[in-house]
Amino acid sequence: MEKTILLKNRPKGKPSISDFEFVTEDPDLKISEGEILLETTYVSVDPYLRGRMSDAKSYVPPFELNKPIQSGVVAKVIESKNENFAVGDFVSGMLSWKTKQKSTGEGLLKVDASKAPLSAYLGILGMTGLTAYLGLNEIGKPVAGETLVVSGAAGAVGSVVGQIGKILGLTVIGIAGTDEKIEMLKSKFGFDAGINYNTSKDIKADIAKAAPHGVDIYFDNVGGPISDAVLFNINRFARIIVCGAISVYNNTELPKSISVQPFLVKNSALMQGFIVSNYAEKFPEAMKHLSTWLAEGKLTYSETIVTGFDQIPNAFIDLFDGKNKGKMIVKI
Amino acid sequence: MEKTILLKNRPKGKPSISDFEFVTEDPDLKISEGEILLETTYVSVDPYLRGRMSDAKSYVPPFELNKPIQSGVVAKVIESKNENFAVGDFVSGMLSWKTKQKSTGEGLLKVDASKAPLSAYLGILGMTGLTAYLGLNEIGKPVAGETLVVSGAAGAVGSVVGQIGKILGLTVIGIAGTDEKIEMLKSKFGFDAGINYNTSKDIKADIAKAAPHGVDIYFDNVGGPISDAVLFNINRFARIIVCGAISVYNNTELPKSISVQPFLVKNSALMQGFIVSNYAEKFPEAMKHLSTWLAEGKLTYSETIVTGFDQIPNAFIDLFDGKNKGKMIVKI
Repeated sequence: MEKTILLKNRPKGKPSISDFEFVTEDPDLKISEGEILLETTYVSVDPYLRGRMSDAKSYVPPFELNKPIQSGVVAKVIESKNENFAVGDFVSGMLSWKTKQKSTGEGLLKVDASKAPLSAYLGILGMTGLTAYLGLNEIGKPVAGETLVVSGAAGAVGSVVGQIGKILGLTVIGIAGTDEKIEMLKSKFGFDAGINYNTSKDIKADIAKAAPHGVDIYFDNVGGPISDAVLFNINRFARIIVCGAISVYNNTELPKSISVQPFLVKNSALMQGFIVSNYAEKFPEAMKHLSTWLAEGKLTYSETIVTGFDQIPNAFIDLFDGKNKGKMIVKI
Repeated sequence: MEKTILLKNRPKGKPSISDFEFVTEDPDLKISEGEILLETTYVSVDPYLRGRMSDAKSYVPPFELNKPIQSGVVAKVIESKNENFAVGDFVSGMLSWKTKQKSTGEGLLKVDASKAPLSAYLGILGMTGLTAYLGLNEIGKPVAGETLVVSGAAGAVGSVVGQIGKILGLTVIGIAGTDEKIEMLKSKFGFDAGINYNTSKDIKADIAKAAPHGVDIYFDNVGGPISDAVLFNINRFARIIVCGAISVYNNTELPKSISVQPFLVKNSALMQGFIVSNYAEKFPEAMKHLSTWLAEGKLTYSETIVTGFDQIPNAFIDLFDGKNKGKMIVKI
C-alpha cells in the first residue's frame, strides 16, 4: 500500500494538521514506455508552500483542493523505461507528496550521491542555495566592505546568505529568534553579529549598534515588524531583497506595517521581490560557485531532518514556529 | 527695503504660516569681484521642501532654523562683476527666498526667455520635467503597450509623467482628487482614464476596471491608501517609482500601510525611491527630449501662478490641500 498527502482545506491562518488528508491506497504503478517509477527519499518543506495553499493570485498557481501537494523531492529510480534514467539513479525535482509515483522524467535532475549527501540537493545545492546566491547577487549587488542584514538568518536560505556575504567581504548581521540560533550564526556560519528578536528590547536600536555604518543590503525573509526596524537603519542606495514574508503568511487579515515609501524616497533605496525561478539562466553559474565553496569548506549548512512520510505536514507546520535550524527536510 | 523668509519652526504636521518669519531689512547688496546681484522673478514651491523643514536624516540636509529657506528660483541679473553673466540675463538654480541676493554664479544655469516662458524653467524644463522623464524611464523602464498608473496625476510631475507615458505608447491612468482635475487629465494631457480618489467608493476596484490587464508601472507621488490600492493590481515584474509620499509627509505619527512585502514577492515586483539629483549625468539627454517634445507640441503643462513675494509660504501650504493644478509657482 502507498501513501499520498492531499490538500484538504485552504488553511485559515497558521496551517493545521486538519488541512491535510492522508490517503492509503494501492495505485496503478505500472509504467509505460518513456516513464520511470520513483520512490521518494527526501521531501523538502518550505515556507513558500503556504502561499500555494491559498487561492490568491500568485506567481505559481495554487494547489488544488483534494489533489496531492508538491514540493522539492529527492527520489530513487526503482523502475525505468526511459533511457535517460537507470534503476538506482537519484533525481531531484518538484514531485508529489507520495511514497511512490510515476514520472516521464521531465523537469527532473539527476543528482550525484557521491559528491554530496542527497539531502543537500534540496538545500545548499538546490533551491535554497540558488535563492541565497542569486537573491544576494542579482538584487543585492554586494560590494566588499558593505553591511548586510539577514532576517530569518538561522533558516535554510538565511544561513547561506550570511555565509556568502562573508565570502564576498561584507559585514554580516543576522536576526533570529533564540539565543541558541544567534550563537550558531556566529560560531558555525561566521556572522559578525546577531540579534535575538524575541529578547531584544529595541530591535531598531540593536541594529543601529550592530551596523554603525548603516545597512546597505537587507535580505528579508520575514517581513513584519523586524523589517520595519531594519528600514530605520538603511543607507542611501540600500537594496532590499524581499525573498519571503514568513511573519505575515499566516495572517488572516491584511498585515499592516509602517509605510515604506518615505524610507525608500529618502534613501533612494530599492526593494525588489525575488523568485528564484525567474533567474533560471543563472543557475549554472550559481551552482558552480556553490559547489566549489562547499567543496572548499567555505560553506556549511544546517538541516533539521525529521523521519517518516506521515511527519511531512507536521514538519511544514513547525516551520512557522521556527522549530527548524536550517533546511527542514523529511526523510522517508 | 528687501524681504527674506526664514524657517521659524520645524512644522508639526501640516505647515502653518506661523512656521515662517518675514524679515524686512536693508541688506548689504554691494557685490565683489566675481559676484552678481540677482532680483528674484519666480519661486518654485514643492512638496519635497516639507522634508527639508524636518530635522530627520535625509538625502539633503535639513533647513536651518532662523535661516532663509531655499528652493528653485528664476532670477534676473541686475548687476554683474562676473564675466559669465551680463545684466539682463535670467538664471535658474537653488536660491534663497529673498527679493534680492548676491551670488557667485556657482550652480546657476542661464535660461533663455525667448525659447520658453521663464516659469517653464522651474517646471517642465526644470526639475519637474527631469523628475518625470528620468523617474519613468530609469526605474519604470516602460515598454510600449504596458499600463502606467500615476498618482498625484494632476500635480506638476504627475501630469508630465502621464504625457510622456502616452508619447512612449503606454496606457495611462491618472489618480487625482477632483472631477475637474480628472477631466483635465483626459482632455488636456491625454490620459486614457482617471480616478477621483475622493469620490471613488472602491479605488482598488476602479483601478482594476481602468487597467483590465493589470498595472505594469506605478509612478507614486502620494503613498498612503492610494498606493495600497494600486498594489492589489500590479502585474508580475511591475516597477514602482516612489517619487514622493505627499499623503504622509505631514503625519506626526509614523504612517501605517498594508505590508508591501507579500505583493513584491508574489509579483517579483520592484519599488525604488527616486531622487532626480542622483541622475545628473542623464540631464542633457532628458532635456533634449523634453524641449523637443515641448517644441513639437507633444507636451503641455499646467501652472498655478500666485503673485507676490509675501504669498510664498501660503502657496507652499496650499500644495498639501491640492489647491494647485500642475506646477505651483510664485511670481514676484
